[in-house]
Amino acid sequence: MTDLPVKDRFHLPEGVIYLDGNSLGVLPKGAARRAVEVIEGDWGQELIRAWNSRDWMDLPRRVGDRVGRLIGAPEGSVTMGDTLSVKVFQALSAALEMRPDRRVILSDAGNFPSDLYMADGLVRHLGRDHEVRTPAPEDVLGAIDDGVAVVMLTEVDYRTGRRHDVSAISRAAHDAGAVMIWDLAHSAGALPVDVVACRCEFAVGCTYKYLNGGPGAPAFIYVRPDLADSIDPVLQGWLGHAAPFEMARDYRPAPGVERMRVGTPPVIQLAVLDAALDAWEGVTLKALRAASVALSERFIAEVEARCPSLTLASPRAAEARGSQVSFAHPEGYAIMQALIARGVIGDFRAPDILRFGFTPLYLDEADVLRAAEVLEEIMATDAWQAPEYRVRGRVT
Amino acid sequence: MTDLPVKDRFHLPEGVIYLDGNSLGVLPKGAARRAVEVIEGDWGQELIRAWNSRDWMDLPRRVGDRVGRLIGAPEGSVTMGDTLSVKVFQALSAALEMRPDRRVILSDAGNFPSDLYMADGLVRHLGRDHEVRTPAPEDVLGAIDDGVAVVMLTEVDYRTGRRHDVSAISRAAHDAGAVMIWDLAHSAGALPVDVVACRCEFAVGCTYKYLNGGPGAPAFIYVRPDLADSIDPVLQGWLGHAAPFEMARDYRPAPGVERMRVGTPPVIQLAVLDAALDAWEGVTLKALRAASVALSERFIAEVEARCPSLTLASPRAAEARGSQVSFAHPEGYAIMQALIARGVIGDFRAPDILRFGFTPLYLDEADVLRAAEVLEEIMATDAWQAPEYRVRGRVT
Repeated sequence: MTDLPVKDRFHLPEGVIYLDGNSLGVLPKGAARRAVEVIEGDWGQELIRAWNSRDWMDLPRRVGDRVGRLIGAPEGSVTMGDTLSVKVFQALSAALEMRPDRRVILSDAGNFPSDLYMADGLVRHLGRDHEVRTPAPEDVLGAIDDGVAVVMLTEVDYRTGRRHDVSAISRAAHDAGAVMIWDLAHSAGALPVDVVACRCEFAVGCTYKYLNGGPGAPAFIYVRPDLADSIDPVLQGWLGHAAPFEMARDYRPAPGVERMRVGTPPVIQLAVLDAALDAWEGVTLKALRAASVALSERFIAEVEARCPSLTLASPRAAEARGSQVSFAHPEGYAIMQALIARGVIGDFRAPDILRFGFTPLYLDEADVLRAAEVLEEIMATDAWQAPEYRVRGRVT
Repeated sequence: MTDLPVKDRFHLPEGVIYLDGNSLGVLPKGAARRAVEVIEGDWGQELIRAWNSRDWMDLPRRVGDRVGRLIGAPEGSVTMGDTLSVKVFQALSAALEMRPDRRVILSDAGNFPSDLYMADGLVRHLGRDHEVRTPAPEDVLGAIDDGVAVVMLTEVDYRTGRRHDVSAISRAAHDAGAVMIWDLAHSAGALPVDVVACRCEFAVGCTYKYLNGGPGAPAFIYVRPDLADSIDPVLQGWLGHAAPFEMARDYRPAPGVERMRVGTPPVIQLAVLDAALDAWEGVTLKALRAASVALSERFIAEVEARCPSLTLASPRAAEARGSQVSFAHPEGYAIMQALIARGVIGDFRAPDILRFGFTPLYLDEADVLRAAEVLEEIMATDAWQAPEYRVRGRVT
């Protein structure tokens, strides 16, 4: 029995088994109260003074340190703000400036589209002869050569759950003289991460998935401390200035990772995220990972036994997966709608992937077993063939 | 009597006269309740389904339309997200791409530093021979020539409250073949704005000042509708994609201004802003402006009569000002601290500016008179000389 004893730290809707925490985490119990405190107490009462009196100005660093502890980052090496796409742009543009003589951004075809779109936009904007290469995930290691300026990968594939070998790829990147950027969107809070051990130059991620920060929660960025002071940020916003309130004409970057701040921090969303991070009190990532593997293995075994028409689309070996399990089926969309209608919430990713996230903070084995039973019933009765499950919504 | 009858739509702390709504607006009454609804009702109960069932996905456009009505923008021409600095970067990079043969970004020395920092960062990043010119505000009109790619100005000077002639400058920019970007940070919700009449290509702004969206509320961007479909965004994030959930490898921009969206929208902050915009129900910008002018004129008259050592740093003519009044004094910092200690909250801007914002939604003439009385008392008794007012905080 590996269930973690913290499920009661979250609000879970009645009758729902939530296997989509890899898309949007659930509501931690303290979040709404904290939002009211920051809105009515800080903003309403202190008004502008709260930047000092409630130390809003330092919130990105304080929350960044809490996120940092979950990814192995030292104090003061992570800051919060913006969205993950913007943080990808910041890391990537800085990385390219670190390797002015190289022209290749190496990613993979399984990377989240927005990461690749941002890379494409950056390359077009620079107007030089940079190139974004996207081999298949399993071919990345072989594609690292000394023309590569930066290797930018998401550790866990958002569709398949396949996990890259962070240490081997980082080593190969560095051996080839490339900069390493890890997108930890599906890693932070999902499995043990050690940005120091892999010596990656940058790591970025979002906080609304496994960190339960709520819809639109701010992103994070880690910069390796020995490099941070040498970066000239492209998005040089005033809150990344060494002394923003001097209102000087010239930009002078703040020390360390703080220069990756851009505009005014989203105080309300940061406060909600800060409250959400309380749910990690006393939880070790080792125990989390053990629970995640146990839940995932159980789900695979149950689904394969009960639903032979579904094909496992994730790696079979637990160590090669993140904290999600995907199954492929040509009618995946309708099957997922039928599941959701029965209170088992996963999601669908084009073209044929049923995606199930395992978030041990608030999921236990009974949930996983019940989810497999519902899926079995849908498949056995062809319930997914009902016309209402075939209408495509915009978001799935 | 021009006071607006909507002061009761806001929470105002006991004993405070708030003349800093040009920095951070006050708390509208419905904001905290709306935050709880979106957190507990939407996120907590609907979870991932809320992107459809509560139409979170469309929130940036819906809120954008509400902001748009305050700046004269047609439906569907404004979207929300990110911070103002990022929106400046988006507008500026798109503008430079529209004038590939020109090299000058013309702004002014009174522009908000972050706008200039972002321009500098962009220019350095592009690595061509672009140049950011910052003449004195009154010299801008004469500095527009056919080498200028883009004129980027903040309508109202954050220190002096000086207001540019939007129509004359926009016309001169267009006559010279330049693109016009207006930063409306101190205009939106402060005075009548008409982005259609001036035919500016872009307008950007923040929503935590006169729009009372709360600390870290998202920024807005307007793109002139006839141009929006021809823009290739540099920050091409997935939510600016025409079909984000296709998860296609290639970026295909969404129609119109929606392509200026980048990452996942800050749903909680957007919901709070949406609630804040309810306070504008039934308020015309004409009435708002009349009240703003009346309050500002009264304040200037009272302060000049009562405090001869303070020098008006704003234009004397009401039509040449935004909705703030600034006074200069070598000891401005200490004087402002003394004011704040007595419940009259304005702010200080280096090197010597005492800044007072007039936000008629929740300020009336009695407030203004009382503020002048307190200032008079501080100056008459040299109360500002107390040592505690000379300690510089980080944010002032």
